[in-house]
Parts: sequence; structure tokens; C-alpha cells
Amino acid sequence: MKPAKISILAPGLIGGSVALAAARAYPNAELFIWSRRKESLAPIQKALPKAKTGTDLPAAAGSDLILLAAPASALADLVRSLLPHLSAHTLVTDVASVKGPVEKELAPLLRGRARWIGSHPMAGSEESGFHAARADLFQNATVILTPTLSTASQTTQDISTFWKALGARVVKVTTEEHDRQVARVSHLPHAVAATLVRAAGPKGLPFAGPGYRDTTRIAAGPTAMWAEILLGNRDEILAGLNGFRTELQALEKALETRDAAALTKFLEDAAKIRRALPSS
Amino acid sequence: MKPAKISILAPGLIGGSVALAAARAYPNAELFIWSRRKESLAPIQKALPKAKTGTDLPAAAGSDLILLAAPASALADLVRSLLPHLSAHTLVTDVASVKGPVEKELAPLLRGRARWIGSHPMAGSEESGFHAARADLFQNATVILTPTLSTASQTTQDISTFWKALGARVVKVTTEEHDRQVARVSHLPHAVAATLVRAAGPKGLPFAGPGYRDTTRIAAGPTAMWAEILLGNRDEILAGLNGFRTELQALEKALETRDAAALTKFLEDAAKIRRALPSS
Repeated sequence: MKPAKISILAPGLIGGSVALAAARAYPNAELFIWSRRKESLAPIQKALPKAKTGTDLPAAAGSDLILLAAPASALADLVRSLLPHLSAHTLVTDVASVKGPVEKELAPLLRGRARWIGSHPMAGSEESGFHAARADLFQNATVILTPTLSTASQTTQDISTFWKALGARVVKVTTEEHDRQVARVSHLPHAVAATLVRAAGPKGLPFAGPGYRDTTRIAAGPTAMWAEILLGNRDEILAGLNGFRTELQALEKALETRDAAALTKFLEDAAKIRRALPSS
Repeated sequence: MKPAKISILAPGLIGGSVALAAARAYPNAELFIWSRRKESLAPIQKALPKAKTGTDLPAAAGSDLILLAAPASALADLVRSLLPHLSAHTLVTDVASVKGPVEKELAPLLRGRARWIGSHPMAGSEESGFHAARADLFQNATVILTPTLSTASQTTQDISTFWKALGARVVKVTTEEHDRQVARVSHLPHAVAATLVRAAGPKGLPFAGPGYRDTTRIAAGPTAMWAEILLGNRDEILAGLNGFRTELQALEKALETRDAAALTKFLEDAAKIRRALPSS
């Protein structure tokens, strides 16, 4: 797929970064960037003078690809308003961090009306909004695709081509597996980072080094968005918390009993797993 | 203080970085770098051809400053062997991550024999050894000093001057306060990072994004050293774990009861604290 027209709704950190990256990857494509609020569009017009911007959804008509980058809670209404402007060949993808609820809402709305598939780019930062957007945000990032049983393989292939053109590597899993794994590698770490910050409190800040800085960086992120994500993936996160607590108890016991061998093994097993993560 | 001779025992990540940084900050000073193992010294001779290196402690005699950067468990024996080569004016500092046990061991040994003060540079990485050492490791890093009631103010001033010359900012607290705060901003985050890695397991790695990468980076660090640190600061870490668990339970309750307001406030209070950390 080489899209002639790409629409991005709306230009926050992820949508804005897709806009910047797509403008480079597809210099001849028409870019339309939609925002609910007109004032959000000025910085985009400045950064991407050739792109079209606007607050009207009909301008998305004729898109080969529509990227839904609005908050997850706003997606169903957005898609309902978008339906008249879709054609069956339009590739539609969202970038929500929790896939189950989005699939439940969007799949029935879009069935037969467009080619929909879920995407989750594992990219971002503790910042939000277009001012934090970067054309290289997806370079070497992982994008998780969640095709369903009714997703045509051409759809999966087309969205893979798109994300790869933006520099990402692509992983495909079921929606359920996505929500299970992401609860453990993204949502739980976020919850735990916030917990660490609260446990240390403001009194700890003057003593903080790079370890604190990195383990807690994401706790500075947008809280409303993260509350929505944590509630959206509640069951998997609660299950992940259970596993986390079991591990934490093992650590605590080793400390309480001054069991150096158990403690070293606890840390060593973790280090072995973590060292297997390729450097970015 | 402008040291004419600086000895560094031994050249791991921290000792090696001090050697590289001191060679820049004090280009006319004589540098002596000691290691128990001769084979550790070859890369240092290559990186710092003007420095003296060796496995004999008498070569440290006449130092204005001796930096003890060996593992905490080896410090007392090292200092005992070093005693004949110290003079009362020699400034001696360690870089151990837990100060209580080190003070208990070193203060009586060094009383009247040298000017000893504890330092804890909040710098490092998940790597270890001289190959990971960097001349700029202490640029904008925090170094915590732990003067005791019997530390002369000139000693505190001299070691401050040294760390500042290496680019660091200096904070002074009691040993007890150091161990309490560092348990919460360094040791507990390390333990929790390892716990997160274990809870997600190797199955999570293909889905990992920058959040996982940063929250768990330190879990790849040297495990024997960290087991020693965690056991060394056991009581404060167990107390910190208690506070952490209380916070985690509040988060879990908000999730279980789907209390969006409580969850948002939990995250927002954490974000407010974390956003107060100056960027590095």
C-alpha cells in the first residue's frame, strides 16, 4: 500500500508524530489532520505547511488511511461521525493502549464500512501534545497489531507496510494477548512508577540519581489518559499486580531472613531476562 | 584543596570514572590507581598513560586524597592494610551506597589516622567495570556527603571541592538520613525494577516499549553488588517496602472499585512530585 491520502485524528503526541513521520515517508501523499479544537491546528500548520488541517470530518473523505489517535473514550463517537465519509477500501487504525474495549466498540461499527485493524505503537514519552511530537518517534519502536479473525490478511499487510515505512518493527497478536502482555510491560510499570514516587515522596528528590530518574520517568506522564488506560485494562492489570505482589513477597522474605543466596538469585533471574531485551 | 596526589582503589565503574574525571580536573596531580588484580590495570594504563597503576598499597603513600571504590564488604580490610601509608592530613572517602555499616567499620579505624568522610555519588549505570567508566559520569550528578559529628568542617569543604571539580553538585546529610532516603530513591526502585521484570517475564519482552525499558533498566545491573547493597540497608528498605505496599494497596483498591477519581488523584499526586525533579 502506498497511500495517496492519509488522515490523522487528532494531533497529540502519537497522532502528531505519525503526521511528521508520514510527511517524510510519503512526501507525495495528501495529509489531512483533524482536531476537535481549531487552536490545536496552528502549530501543525507551522510544522507541516503542506498538510491540510481542519475541524470538519468530511475533509477525511477519500482517505486511503485514517489514523484514529483521539482518546480511547472518544473513539466510538468519532467513528460514528466518520462513517459517512468512509469507503470499504479505507484502512482505519486506532492507536489505543487497551485493545479489548476498542475492538468491542469499533469492530461492529466499522464492519463492512472500512478495513479496520488495531495498532498500538509502543512509543511515547512522559510528555503529551503536539509540542512533544517527533518525526523519529517510531524509529525502531515496536508497533503491536491486533488483527481479529475477520481481518483480511491484506489489511494486516497494508498497515504493517505503513508502520514499517515510519521506521517501526511490527508484532502481531490477538487482542486478548495484547492486553495481557501490555498490562505487564506497560500498564503495571506505569502504576508501579507512580507508586514508587509516592512511597519516596518529595523528600527523596534531592537525593535522586539516574536510577530514580529512569524508574519513575513515566510517572510524570498525562494522568487522565493513564487513569483511562488503567481502568480500561483493569482485569489484566489486577492479575498482573497479583503476580507482582507474589514476586515482591519473595524479595521481602529474602531480605527479612537475610538470605543472600535467595536475594542474589532473585536479582540474577531478573537481570537475565532484562539483559535479553535488545538495546534500542 | 588542590590535591597533588590522588589514589583510587579500585577502578570499577565509579572508581574508573573518578580517575578519568580527576585526570581532567587536576591535570597536574599525580594519579595512582590500585587494583587487587593486575589484569584490571591494563585498560587504565591505556586510557590514562600518565597515571601510575599497581597492586601494592604502599604506592598510595603521600596521597592528599584516597578514594575507596572497592565493594563495601572489602573496605575494612583494605583500610587496615592502608593504615601504615596514611598521614593525618590524608583525605579518605568511600563511595559506598549504604553508609551506616561503612561508618561503623571505617570511623574507628581511621580516627586520628586520616581525615575520613563518606561520599555517595548518585551516578552509575546498569553496566559495571572500567569499560563502562566515563569522564563525564559526575557532570550534574548529585554526590551525597555524610559528615559525622566528629568530621572537621574543613574535611567536608575539601571533599565538596573535589566532587564539584568533577562536575557534581553536593548534598550533606547524616548517615541515618542518607540510608533512609537512599533506600527509597535508589534501593527500593532497584528491587522493584527487578520485581517488575520477573512479573512480566521473558514473554513480555517482544512487546516492551520505552516505559518498560526505562522502569526496568537498572534490573540489568550487577546482581552481587546489589544484593550486598540491599542486605546492607535491609531495615530501611523493609520500611520503604511497607510504605510502598500501602500505596500499592490504595491503587489496587481504586482499580478494583473502578474509582476513576481516586485513581486519577493517585496518579496526579505522583506526577506532581515527579515533575518537581529538575531535568538532568
